[in-house]
Amino acid sequence: MTTRSLDLVKSGGFNVIGKRPVRHDGVDKVTGRAAYGADIFLSGMLHAKVLRSPHAHATIVSVDTSKAEALSGVHAVITYKDLPEPSEGTTELNESGVQDTYYKAYNMLAREKALYDGHAIAAVAAIDPHIAEEAVRLIDIEYELHPPVMDCKQALAPDAVLLLPDIFTDTEGEIDGKPSNVTKHVIFEEGDLEGGFAEADVVVEAEYNTATVHQGYIETHNATARWHEDETLEVWCSSQGQFGIRQELSDLLRMPISKINVTPMELGGGFGGKTTVYLEILAALLSKKTDRPVKMTMTRAEVLRGTGPTPGTWEKVKIGTTNDGKITAVHVTLYFEAGGVPGSPLGAGAMTALGPYSLKNFRIDGYEVLVNKPHSHAYRAPGATQAEYAVESAVDEICEKLGMDPMEFRLLNASREGDLRVDGPPLLLVGNVECLENIKNSDHWQTPLKQPEEPHLKRGRGLASGFWMNGGGMSSAQGRVNPDGTVTLVEGSVDCGGTRTSVAMQMAEVLGIPIEDINPIVPDTDSVNYTGVTGGSRVTYATGYAAIEAAHEIVRQMVEGMADIWDVDPQGVEFEDGTFSTNGKTVSFKDAASLLDDEDIGILGTASVAPSRAGNAFTVQLADVEVDTETGKVQVLRYTGTQDAGVAIYPPYVEGQLQGGIVQGIGWALNEEYFYDDEGHLRNASLLDYRMPTALDLPMIETVITEVPNPGHPFGVRGVGEVSIASPPAVIANAIHDAVGVRMRDLPMSPPRVQKAISENGGA
Amino acid sequence: MTTRSLDLVKSGGFNVIGKRPVRHDGVDKVTGRAAYGADIFLSGMLHAKVLRSPHAHATIVSVDTSKAEALSGVHAVITYKDLPEPSEGTTELNESGVQDTYYKAYNMLAREKALYDGHAIAAVAAIDPHIAEEAVRLIDIEYELHPPVMDCKQALAPDAVLLLPDIFTDTEGEIDGKPSNVTKHVIFEEGDLEGGFAEADVVVEAEYNTATVHQGYIETHNATARWHEDETLEVWCSSQGQFGIRQELSDLLRMPISKINVTPMELGGGFGGKTTVYLEILAALLSKKTDRPVKMTMTRAEVLRGTGPTPGTWEKVKIGTTNDGKITAVHVTLYFEAGGVPGSPLGAGAMTALGPYSLKNFRIDGYEVLVNKPHSHAYRAPGATQAEYAVESAVDEICEKLGMDPMEFRLLNASREGDLRVDGPPLLLVGNVECLENIKNSDHWQTPLKQPEEPHLKRGRGLASGFWMNGGGMSSAQGRVNPDGTVTLVEGSVDCGGTRTSVAMQMAEVLGIPIEDINPIVPDTDSVNYTGVTGGSRVTYATGYAAIEAAHEIVRQMVEGMADIWDVDPQGVEFEDGTFSTNGKTVSFKDAASLLDDEDIGILGTASVAPSRAGNAFTVQLADVEVDTETGKVQVLRYTGTQDAGVAIYPPYVEGQLQGGIVQGIGWALNEEYFYDDEGHLRNASLLDYRMPTALDLPMIETVITEVPNPGHPFGVRGVGEVSIASPPAVIANAIHDAVGVRMRDLPMSPPRVQKAISENGGA
Repeated sequence: MTTRSLDLVKSGGFNVIGKRPVRHDGVDKVTGRAAYGADIFLSGMLHAKVLRSPHAHATIVSVDTSKAEALSGVHAVITYKDLPEPSEGTTELNESGVQDTYYKAYNMLAREKALYDGHAIAAVAAIDPHIAEEAVRLIDIEYELHPPVMDCKQALAPDAVLLLPDIFTDTEGEIDGKPSNVTKHVIFEEGDLEGGFAEADVVVEAEYNTATVHQGYIETHNATARWHEDETLEVWCSSQGQFGIRQELSDLLRMPISKINVTPMELGGGFGGKTTVYLEILAALLSKKTDRPVKMTMTRAEVLRGTGPTPGTWEKVKIGTTNDGKITAVHVTLYFEAGGVPGSPLGAGAMTALGPYSLKNFRIDGYEVLVNKPHSHAYRAPGATQAEYAVESAVDEICEKLGMDPMEFRLLNASREGDLRVDGPPLLLVGNVECLENIKNSDHWQTPLKQPEEPHLKRGRGLASGFWMNGGGMSSAQGRVNPDGTVTLVEGSVDCGGTRTSVAMQMAEVLGIPIEDINPIVPDTDSVNYTGVTGGSRVTYATGYAAIEAAHEIVRQMVEGMADIWDVDPQGVEFEDGTFSTNGKTVSFKDAASLLDDEDIGILGTASVAPSRAGNAFTVQLADVEVDTETGKVQVLRYTGTQDAGVAIYPPYVEGQLQGGIVQGIGWALNEEYFYDDEGHLRNASLLDYRMPTALDLPMIETVITEVPNPGHPFGVRGVGEVSIASPPAVIANAIHDAVGVRMRDLPMSPPRVQKAISENGGA
Repeated sequence: MTTRSLDLVKSGGFNVIGKRPVRHDGVDKVTGRAAYGADIFLSGMLHAKVLRSPHAHATIVSVDTSKAEALSGVHAVITYKDLPEPSEGTTELNESGVQDTYYKAYNMLAREKALYDGHAIAAVAAIDPHIAEEAVRLIDIEYELHPPVMDCKQALAPDAVLLLPDIFTDTEGEIDGKPSNVTKHVIFEEGDLEGGFAEADVVVEAEYNTATVHQGYIETHNATARWHEDETLEVWCSSQGQFGIRQELSDLLRMPISKINVTPMELGGGFGGKTTVYLEILAALLSKKTDRPVKMTMTRAEVLRGTGPTPGTWEKVKIGTTNDGKITAVHVTLYFEAGGVPGSPLGAGAMTALGPYSLKNFRIDGYEVLVNKPHSHAYRAPGATQAEYAVESAVDEICEKLGMDPMEFRLLNASREGDLRVDGPPLLLVGNVECLENIKNSDHWQTPLKQPEEPHLKRGRGLASGFWMNGGGMSSAQGRVNPDGTVTLVEGSVDCGGTRTSVAMQMAEVLGIPIEDINPIVPDTDSVNYTGVTGGSRVTYATGYAAIEAAHEIVRQMVEGMADIWDVDPQGVEFEDGTFSTNGKTVSFKDAASLLDDEDIGILGTASVAPSRAGNAFTVQLADVEVDTETGKVQVLRYTGTQDAGVAIYPPYVEGQLQGGIVQGIGWALNEEYFYDDEGHLRNASLLDYRMPTALDLPMIETVITEVPNPGHPFGVRGVGEVSIASPPAVIANAIHDAVGVRMRDLPMSPPRVQKAISENGGA
């Protein structure tokens, strides 16, 4: 089922790569010993709680903290006035990919206005969390309420209420010369769109909407900060990247990064949602003000109300093809909700929308729009799920019009090596076609779907593709050889899904030692060189690359050391399969470690790399669903997904990423949404009411690993963490259409919506 | 007053070295934010307390822990049976300088016998320290008491009670074919001793005794351990070296070092006493048994009763000279108390005894002897103070006999470059003579001592020299360059007395940047390469050396990076005084850091070094005392000390080390001693009763830094931490003799002893 093709893979296989060892983080996690942010306790530590706006859109007329400050046990209260005054500016990302500090700060602590239900306004530090909570209730705020703006259509209406009217006149925020809620317009285009549509025999034009959904990580946000008298800052928190947190704190606090040390605690899920500060900045300011360490943790309701979900969208797709199914032109228009301040995964959504297809003529217009919801943030292949739900649904519609098998349509139009991405770079060797073929050859595709006997149950099958760029960027790793022949691997990437092991395996492969002999650790920002965020499906690729380079440096140093011991030229020392040799003498890696230690030779291989040829990721997914036409409930009966992993370093991880992304995507498809009332209050801010799929809702997700090695990595790795979430809503929508003949154009496809669509369609 | 002589020092001075910047550890320590072992809190953590023997010498007939275990809140009780069975063996040190594991383990948890008052027998982990204490009292132990053996003479008597009779028959423990309490006999000799004494015109033969004294660090011992289900162990503790603690835990627990990670907490004083495990092993065993993290801290009484003081000794010196004062032969015999199990600083005492002198004929016999006291351990220049008290007193006696100025005697006989140490290695360029001359030229020496008018007050002046080897050994450092041009210095040496800064200054000097731009950190054993203990006056020398090498590697990488940016050959790029240049273009270190970061070039210089040419240390000290002949109280009126610092990296540190060592030595001289009753109970186990000098007892200690650069270090550094403690007891004894004509042969020279000596001498 795999299609490894690089010479290095062909030439005899790997010792460690492709195996399924016990993961390094496993035992501690299952026995409760792994240390998360909630496990931090410091001497003299205070606890802090946040006052959050109960209103979706309100001017803050006054804030009176005097009663809270007077409460016994309270040490300090902060508002936005405790932040250094940020410069006003644009929504551009800075070098570190951080959104403009002014709006970032505005989101951390509301200024003139509260911009969504849950927007943080003040925080209180006290001797225990209960007193802090009580003090929060003692803060008096006078609000002046405004009508909430809750989706893109409302925000774009000619008479729309403006969220931040004064600020945006120097940005994209004008429509027809008037200020608007639009904060960004991105365009990707190539070829002759009009000519393409003119060539088309068949055209489909359709609109879609997706809901605001949350990443739903199990561990809630937390942060502990200790401000030092010499104006340095220590922070412990749950994040997908200690260096990104350091950078944001540096920007927000206007402190040099070298004065900030961030220790990443074990990560209880992130999915893109833990790549930014929320509590960290509040804890830091409170620690500064109180001269004490300050710890903060969120409740689940705070996570849902106050942190960044992925945005709801309004999307339009126009696609034209010849009669034999060749695409001649596509126009995609995306409206992404930013939430209360600018910033969203719009750009990535636009870049992925058309990834699976080889196109001559296309245009993608993307608009980012302010609404009174939490500031949107990354969620696993950010923007791709929204965009591909629209495009892959439209593809299904045109296949229906053409009377063409959707698999054949995709094979005919598939993007391949050398095709350009919409944002420019050419695709390297990629497995888009191989993914399609692996699904086509799967037992699932080959097994016809049978209809049940009950007349109210209808089954259907859906297919969709997905694309994600995958990231590269800088990563660092160090390997220190211990006297007992084990290697401590210091890596800069926060462990997500077991990446300690997927990175360590690459080092072990180079060193020719068992994976059990490598002990990977992920330290604070002071203790390892800069490493980009654990996101963009980049860790096993880029940090693995660094580990490989560090391993080569270890070998170089050990060869030199053994040459000294053997009194030969280093060029006369060979290293292969974990053994050093010269003139018939051999010594194992383990024994060499001990010999070199005896000579007081410390072996430390280090590497910082910024590889730029991350292999792009493709997925193809297939589902069978059963629709209860009476209730509208959709049951997923069978689901098979494949993705191009490049070379699968740790195959169960690839399977797990496929399964995890698909399950989350099914959540988007069928149930998950931020449910707001007319005043803009979030009414389902708990995991009881915000309905994520459970094991009982789902079949076993079948996985097929497609392996088309990435030529941009020594072992052929490409990222695998994200692309799997891009397809499920389209897969399920297409399957529902197949089952009951209705086209679901709004997520989630919840029972009431499906039931309504069926009945509007005159029944199934 | 300084005598810098290396070319590098002459050639134009330093930018950073020799300055007095704000030390990196200062602000956190004075504002209470520095994190010590007592500041560790882990989720689910238990607290443990130790049951200690109330008897000095007793067979443990039975231990019944059932009542303790039954107490609500108690999680586990351990005794020596919970330790892996150590192999029986000799008292030899292993490669890591760790004493044989069997006796180390015996000292941690008593086996068949309790060997001193305070010997740990069991430990209890409970939900809080109070319940743990209560449970300790519920352990029933049946003892069979033996007569305690409290000093060397008693232990060496023909009919002496034996502490460990069965074990020692395979070691040195036989005298005249019979088992004894002697555990070691070391000999250093050279030349013809008998011939030398035959040449002598004048001979002095004398005996001296020193008391058991404690290092008296402010912070008591503490340790927190977390045992993981995958048989790995984390430990947080106060120590002078995380790697030594790891090694001892590895030996005691029979676990590979790679399974143990030790995090060094801030150190609240050590002075040699925190170079070994006490609580760490107990916390680890209890954590293993309870599946919970376990924290332990000692009370002051536990520190005094249960940790290693420096041994009491019995010493004999025979010295012969010609009539003009040239030494012809010396014989020194040292008996050092080991405490209850083998091991002591005997070897170092023997090696230092005669260091200040150039000798043709000598012999040193050293014996280590078991007594029922806590197991002796290192204390600042371990063994030197005892040995030099004897030798420098005897030198004063012979000067008196010769009618010779003790300064001239020392100048005449001074050891110099090329002289061999008693243990073999030749002295490098050393400042023994320069130290003598600096004291000779000091205002103190030049100012005659005036007698007071009160007839019962007599003043005297004393002089003594001191010697210490200083250590080298392996150290590691890494410098990572941050984009803002600062450098994070990761060093393996636990900070003692501000060594973060003395090491960082050497890196700053090479890099040509301000010391404020270097941020030194000291991480856990997983995060930095092996580094020897913070002891032996080795840190500023060896870890400084590593920092220099790491800095050179940083420069090399940055030159290469700038060559890339400038598109020139690296050999065309110059680096001087913090500036890179080529063909008229220049860029500062700070700007280069930013430019290289823009290019995703991570700069990380690393070095592990094991320099072997640590410069030897000499001190010369001078004191004026006033003796109250009625009470025997001795008041130190004026005290001046110098030591050869090589090049003083941070001059106030050198002054501080001189002052600190001298103050501790004055404590040995005048007041400090373990006071035992007839049954061997320690009767002064508190800092109220164990009398350390306070600021009110002392004059300002005047310091003179002698700087004879060490040719074995790039900046001429030699260690400065220890030698200053070697001389004070001899200085004070010689001054008392000068004042009142009595020779004090027993430490401490406390008021009753002095008064008694004066009255036995017929008054002053």
